[in-house]
Amino acid sequence: MKDKLRIFSGSSCPELAAQIAERLGVQLGKIKLSQFKSGETYVHYEESIRNMDVFLVQSLSHPINEMFVQLLVMIDAAKRASARTINIIVPYYGYARQERKSAPREPISAKMVADVLTTVGAHRVITIDLHASAIQGFFNIPVDHLTALDLISGYLKTKKIEDAVVVSPDAGRASMAEKLANRLDSPFAMMIKKRPAHNESVITHVIGNVEGKTPIIIEDLIDTGTTIINVVESLKERGAKEVIVCATHGLFSGAALQRLDHPYIRELVVTDSISLPPGHLDRLTVLSVSPMLAHAVRIIMEGGSIATLFSDAGI
Amino acid sequence: MKDKLRIFSGSSCPELAAQIAERLGVQLGKIKLSQFKSGETYVHYEESIRNMDVFLVQSLSHPINEMFVQLLVMIDAAKRASARTINIIVPYYGYARQERKSAPREPISAKMVADVLTTVGAHRVITIDLHASAIQGFFNIPVDHLTALDLISGYLKTKKIEDAVVVSPDAGRASMAEKLANRLDSPFAMMIKKRPAHNESVITHVIGNVEGKTPIIIEDLIDTGTTIINVVESLKERGAKEVIVCATHGLFSGAALQRLDHPYIRELVVTDSISLPPGHLDRLTVLSVSPMLAHAVRIIMEGGSIATLFSDAGI
Amino acid sequence: MKDKLRIFSGSSCPELAAQIAERLGVQLGKIKLSQFKSGETYVHYEESIRNMDVFLVQSLSHPINEMFVQLLVMIDAAKRASARTINIIVPYYGYARQERKSAPREPISAKMVADVLTTVGAHRVITIDLHASAIQGFFNIPVDHLTALDLISGYLKTKKIEDAVVVSPDAGRASMAEKLANRLDSPFAMMIKKRPAHNESVITHVIGNVEGKTPIIIEDLIDTGTTIINVVESLKERGAKEVIVCATHGLFSGAALQRLDHPYIRELVVTDSISLPPGHLDRLTVLSVSPMLAHAVRIIMEGGSIATLFSDAGI
Amino acid sequence: MKDKLRIFSGSSCPELAAQIAERLGVQLGKIKLSQFKSGETYVHYEESIRNMDVFLVQSLSHPINEMFVQLLVMIDAAKRASARTINIIVPYYGYARQERKSAPREPISAKMVADVLTTVGAHRVITIDLHASAIQGFFNIPVDHLTALDLISGYLKTKKIEDAVVVSPDAGRASMAEKLANRLDSPFAMMIKKRPAHNESVITHVIGNVEGKTPIIIEDLIDTGTTIINVVESLKERGAKEVIVCATHGLFSGAALQRLDHPYIRELVVTDSISLPPGHLDRLTVLSVSPMLAHAVRIIMEGGSIATLFSDAGI
Amino acid sequence: MKDKLRIFSGSSCPELAAQIAERLGVQLGKIKLSQFKSGETYVHYEESIRNMDVFLVQSLSHPINEMFVQLLVMIDAAKRASARTINIIVPYYGYARQERKSAPREPISAKMVADVLTTVGAHRVITIDLHASAIQGFFNIPVDHLTALDLISGYLKTKKIEDAVVVSPDAGRASMAEKLANRLDSPFAMMIKKRPAHNESVITHVIGNVEGKTPIIIEDLIDTGTTIINVVESLKERGAKEVIVCATHGLFSGAALQRLDHPYIRELVVTDSISLPPGHLDRLTVLSVSPMLAHAVRIIMEGGSIATLFSDAGI
Amino acid sequence: MKDKLRIFSGSSCPELAAQIAERLGVQLGKIKLSQFKSGETYVHYEESIRNMDVFLVQSLSHPINEMFVQLLVMIDAAKRASARTINIIVPYYGYARQERKSAPREPISAKMVADVLTTVGAHRVITIDLHASAIQGFFNIPVDHLTALDLISGYLKTKKIEDAVVVSPDAGRASMAEKLANRLDSPFAMMIKKRPAHNESVITHVIGNVEGKTPIIIEDLIDTGTTIINVVESLKERGAKEVIVCATHGLFSGAALQRLDHPYIRELVVTDSISLPPGHLDRLTVLSVSPMLAHAVRIIMEGGSIATLFSDAGI
Repeated sequence: MKDKLRIFSGSSCPELAAQIAERLGVQLGKIKLSQFKSGETYVHYEESIRNMDVFLVQSLSHPINEMFVQLLVMIDAAKRASARTINIIVPYYGYARQERKSAPREPISAKMVADVLTTVGAHRVITIDLHASAIQGFFNIPVDHLTALDLISGYLKTKKIEDAVVVSPDAGRASMAEKLANRLDSPFAMMIKKRPAHNESVITHVIGNVEGKTPIIIEDLIDTGTTIINVVESLKERGAKEVIVCATHGLFSGAALQRLDHPYIRELVVTDSISLPPGHLDRLTVLSVSPMLAHAVRIIMEGGSIATLFSDAGI
Repeated sequence: MKDKLRIFSGSSCPELAAQIAERLGVQLGKIKLSQFKSGETYVHYEESIRNMDVFLVQSLSHPINEMFVQLLVMIDAAKRASARTINIIVPYYGYARQERKSAPREPISAKMVADVLTTVGAHRVITIDLHASAIQGFFNIPVDHLTALDLISGYLKTKKIEDAVVVSPDAGRASMAEKLANRLDSPFAMMIKKRPAHNESVITHVIGNVEGKTPIIIEDLIDTGTTIINVVESLKERGAKEVIVCATHGLFSGAALQRLDHPYIRELVVTDSISLPPGHLDRLTVLSVSPMLAHAVRIIMEGGSIATLFSDAGI
Repeated sequence: MKDKLRIFSGSSCPELAAQIAERLGVQLGKIKLSQFKSGETYVHYEESIRNMDVFLVQSLSHPINEMFVQLLVMIDAAKRASARTINIIVPYYGYARQERKSAPREPISAKMVADVLTTVGAHRVITIDLHASAIQGFFNIPVDHLTALDLISGYLKTKKIEDAVVVSPDAGRASMAEKLANRLDSPFAMMIKKRPAHNESVITHVIGNVEGKTPIIIEDLIDTGTTIINVVESLKERGAKEVIVCATHGLFSGAALQRLDHPYIRELVVTDSISLPPGHLDRLTVLSVSPMLAHAVRIIMEGGSIATLFSDAGI
Repeated sequence: MKDKLRIFSGSSCPELAAQIAERLGVQLGKIKLSQFKSGETYVHYEESIRNMDVFLVQSLSHPINEMFVQLLVMIDAAKRASARTINIIVPYYGYARQERKSAPREPISAKMVADVLTTVGAHRVITIDLHASAIQGFFNIPVDHLTALDLISGYLKTKKIEDAVVVSPDAGRASMAEKLANRLDSPFAMMIKKRPAHNESVITHVIGNVEGKTPIIIEDLIDTGTTIINVVESLKERGAKEVIVCATHGLFSGAALQRLDHPYIRELVVTDSISLPPGHLDRLTVLSVSPMLAHAVRIIMEGGSIATLFSDAGI
Repeated sequence: MKDKLRIFSGSSCPELAAQIAERLGVQLGKIKLSQFKSGETYVHYEESIRNMDVFLVQSLSHPINEMFVQLLVMIDAAKRASARTINIIVPYYGYARQERKSAPREPISAKMVADVLTTVGAHRVITIDLHASAIQGFFNIPVDHLTALDLISGYLKTKKIEDAVVVSPDAGRASMAEKLANRLDSPFAMMIKKRPAHNESVITHVIGNVEGKTPIIIEDLIDTGTTIINVVESLKERGAKEVIVCATHGLFSGAALQRLDHPYIRELVVTDSISLPPGHLDRLTVLSVSPMLAHAVRIIMEGGSIATLFSDAGI
Repeated sequence: MKDKLRIFSGSSCPELAAQIAERLGVQLGKIKLSQFKSGETYVHYEESIRNMDVFLVQSLSHPINEMFVQLLVMIDAAKRASARTINIIVPYYGYARQERKSAPREPISAKMVADVLTTVGAHRVITIDLHASAIQGFFNIPVDHLTALDLISGYLKTKKIEDAVVVSPDAGRASMAEKLANRLDSPFAMMIKKRPAHNESVITHVIGNVEGKTPIIIEDLIDTGTTIINVVESLKERGAKEVIVCATHGLFSGAALQRLDHPYIRELVVTDSISLPPGHLDRLTVLSVSPMLAHAVRIIMEGGSIATLFSDAGI
């Protein structure tokens, strides 16, 4: 396997890429990533990749358009350098929330991203907890869609929270929350909202019992944290205890980390699919997806079934 | 507009096609649809469509594979007959529930259908209440995704049900139910399930209050009706009154109509996106999507915004 | 070879697929083929096919549209499950008679089928005696076009028919009949027809001498048998003996088998490219194409020339 | 119509192009066609074609590769000059006899030609009497496949040949001959051949009665004339009168015209789909396809059915 | 024309877009351009563009990756909103200097950009003075490649510089400089460089006479200005007078404007293809390409030849 | 390597192909290349290439359209014969000078050639000294772009020319000449031209010092030699010694070789990228690119970096 495998990291999550390589017992490939003064991205593979199976690790995280274009340039250069296959590991697939038109004359940017990646030359995508599972179908190349839900539920089980209730922060996340509730054998509750205007919403009530319980909120991603804080406060008003907030992807845009350093939040659990800024919160727990991704790479190179990473948990 | 417009009906919903044409003040185009003894589908346009904007009306409903292949053959023949544009009106888009892999080594048939329709030559799709909104993104041709939710909520409002509660039959439908609840200004409840095995599920409890209320179940489609009956009985056990069951698409596969002729069901509301067998139930109300589709055709031909048919209601 | 080879059967000809696998010394792959109540086809590979060379065996025979869509879904699932190559063995390629427009505004369904198979993800086609050889060119993926003509002529030679005359049932089949006549070193005759209307024809006379001879009719396929019976009776009227009817593909649509159980027909020879219903006629001989197909698979996997299966006999 | 229509001629048949333009009441467009000393083809449109419907007239006749590449360059330049549609009138579609593999490891050049024309940017093909009708299906753009059979049979009817017999020169042309026989209400005969080696054949006998009759040989094309002369002499040996030889396309490769200036040939009838060298034979009659092609252009521009040019006569 | 034309501006050069619209006598279309907190680009057309010919104005200038992705999202949304054609006006085409591999394992980013724009749905490109003319060929959609060389030479002629010498700053720009020299009827000189390492170069000497003359340096673009300053100082050392520096595109990356505020530079001439920061230099002259672009739009909409904007000046 | 490698030669440069094969220690593959009387190209691989890595050697040299179409037919046949990869070695890539539009309504034939080669089925291109480097980007398949500049400069160094000056015959070749000057550590000069009309030019003066020196003219290709002779005579007038003329590709169209047998030309240096007619000039030196091409094939088959053949010398 190792003589054909080359792993390269883009600029978005070099630590994660290094851990994947380490687990596979290989060195990260040498690549020059730079930017001209004009802002143009430049990429140069500093070792031959001719006939190799190349894996490029890049999350579409902040600054997302830079990371996206860098990935395109990496793929283009790999294609022209005669790589045998170009596999992209995109731990966090940005633009996934633009996966349908919710108003006329909007883009479906998540499809645009998929089309562009394929056109430029990607042969396979490995990703984790897409905002909408149907995004797999935006590709005609194989997509290995992994989930961090087992990682998260495994961690939560070690906590032995006796009075847990899994809470879906809105109707769109109900399926994911139901899956976590089933894994933890916990009851379920959901926030109900009204949308007085496009891109606005207010929580009107909660269905399911949360009083005196420890709510576990589950999300695919945490962005600015504003919605989470609303949910947390709304739960507190209804008599809930301090909340555990879980998400696969910790975007933490803007002042999110400050906002989430909140007295009603007992713990914040995310994965390393997105690099975090240094100096985290005390209450932040980061689980690593590197074992899961390294395992996927091994299966892709050696054959076998990825089902053990799959388990019907797609969000 | 009329000199360039030609509407043809496939075999799946000729009455609906006729109503659309009538509302637009045109005749349905003449087309021969037949099947050879070998089972091969044959299609022949019996009038010139050269340089015309052709609209083909075909739901992907029972027998779905026959209807699908017939639509492909209709598109192929239209393309070779030099139609200017080929627009397909697919009131019910079958295979939509196969829109993602829920286990390894499954197909994403909804994407396969989209790719095939585009390859064969469709230029535009008009459809209603896709099982998953992201299916719009499976296409790179324009998709006019309409919703029957306003039609259904408008009808329900005329009923003046004072003790209504909108019930989502499972977590996956929560968004659609939330939208209907907002439109009707009603409370909301949801069934919670466990899935002991793949493709199996049991209702474990209900969140939200249903006792003494009239539940309105909303679904994008009713297939065999088995799930609905489970939900209805489960609601009754929890003290609810008789139920109103609503769905955009009435597939009514197998013995569904007999099954749904159930004492706990007060009324069954669907649209004519799928042709119903003759001799319906008394308790069945069929709302017509033909005004909505005719309006969409007019806008496509004459320009203007389809937003009035859209209203953020995508399921 | 065997560690990379996986053979799966669709629903149309499982016996043939099993024989191919047996001859290659491998097990048929495990696959779930089912249909939902709504009529939607579902497919699930029950073993890993990652990096494998997958061969899917499926004739486009009755019920043709079901078999066609099932094959599409099988290909889609194989593509998304990371098969290395997807090779489709289509012993009988249906829709082949719709290979050109014989009237304006008709489809060319044989091309539509080819385009769709390629779009969905097939990498290679293995097929037998296409109705028109040019259908090979409908594909840009490699087509291994085999012929059963040597199998049939080999069988006929064992019969030592001394007064044989090869008869082409119409002008369109003259080339195939000429080839068989050359192989058997027999004289040749042909039926001449008029076509008073589209899709209608009447035999007006025979050219070549048939009196007192044993006619051997050769066709690529037998569909309803009506034409064959006309030819047989017409030959009898002109003083011919009982007829031997040969064809690669025995569709036997509708009441064909009863119709062909005819006193003037001495023997009916077809191959197992299409599964036959149980309880055949006494006068029916079925030759197996499984050795030929197994040989083709072996060559594809191991390299080498398929010419020995080819011999300029393309119909 | 005329304000959008522009017709340009390539180098292969400028007289025919001029006649088409004249019949449509337009001027041929100004185009520079030249060749650099290095042999590279150069093309320059000398008038604006922006937003125009461009028709390019070019037969793929001798020197075929020059004419083919010139057509590609004409299409490329038209595409980049913003033509609205690029319609190619290819009266004679060369390479059509390479429409299938008759031995392993051969090309299917007729498909290569079709793919290349489409890739470079053609939107529609108008052609006449393809060697194999299925070549229509090699394209996914509309093909208007016209036939000269009515033109030829109309001409023959004016000759009032009382003892005519239509003769198919080989099995592959039997369908076309049968169609002509039906049109002329004449009997039918066919030459039977053996092929001792690839690309070799000898006439062994004739089926059908030719003695004392005037044979009318019909072909889609006459190439070197060698086969025709063999057939003619073979017919004479069997007691036939002098022969009328008809074909849509007169390639007349090599010394064909001298060879066909033969005492047993009463008349040679072809069309002007291919430009003939000056100084024709006395016995050569050239019918013009320009009215038919001009009519097709008019229908394409104005809409309507091309069926009147079609009449199920596709060879 | 105006009822079908809609012009929208991206974020890179709104003033230029407004001037183009004004010259065409139309309003700029209403579009919402924003960015989510996560950095994702969002676009929403605030008026119907169904069946319209849409022109999107966006230079690929600083911040280039943001502007590029914004343009992709604008195209995607326009495609899905049923625009009839999507025409992109890209006054400055960034990434053009990555138009070939100058070392192994580099990208050809200029091609990647072209492929991506086409895939997402652009139908036509209008651009000015590409860094390499062959980039036109990176597209298969029509490219209207305009030049500002006439604009610049026209301006210089008004200056009546008697002792001018046109100077090519390096070998790669010699063609463009030769064209300007011909237009101005001036002598020509060129800087000669060595490249001791990749992406490094030193001027070794000048060929052509510059002593006592006013050098006019011509470039397609000015980036950081470092090279220009080297050339200017090198010219001064060789006895030249103060220099006039001309370029189509003023990128002015980093501290370029400060650097170019240099005593040896008499005047700096660029166009408004890229928006300049407020507070320009005194010695900076900005010529507007808006008349040229408006004229191109008019021709595209109304037909006619763009040759008057072309004049063989492609850099 | 050798068990998967098959090298076939087209008709343009069989000696070069044979030398490449010999250096790699393999036999040239057996292929039949012929032409029918009608001028149609025919190709037949006379050995199995199933699953092989096929290398096709063909320069696009005189007669260029024949060689181009032959290469297309070779690729098509290889694709249909199930070659694993199809690699084309095109030592001289003709049509490269039509790589951009220099006037409106011209083709970009170099792109057309690239698109067509890719469509028909090429997977990789190996070529030498493209007229414009950006042509690499016309392909999305890998292009190994080699240069003969090191071969030529190496040869020139053995000559120890003490008074050399490298001369660029026009502005468009300045970069290539600068590279050679750097390699030889020689001064540089350039011819300056005016273009009074399209495709016409006159030398007006020379910049850089040539008097008393031995000019080395460097070009990518020599076509008719007319320009070279003008340059040579112009240099002589300015006091230069006899000239050494170097080019990678010796097209020698028309009477070029006679023209270049000129007293002012001391030596003419080209490579064997194009087959030369027998009976060369005495003053002609032909360097072989076969070691370079064989080395490239070895690297492609065995992996590794082609950088040693690359060295930033792309013309």
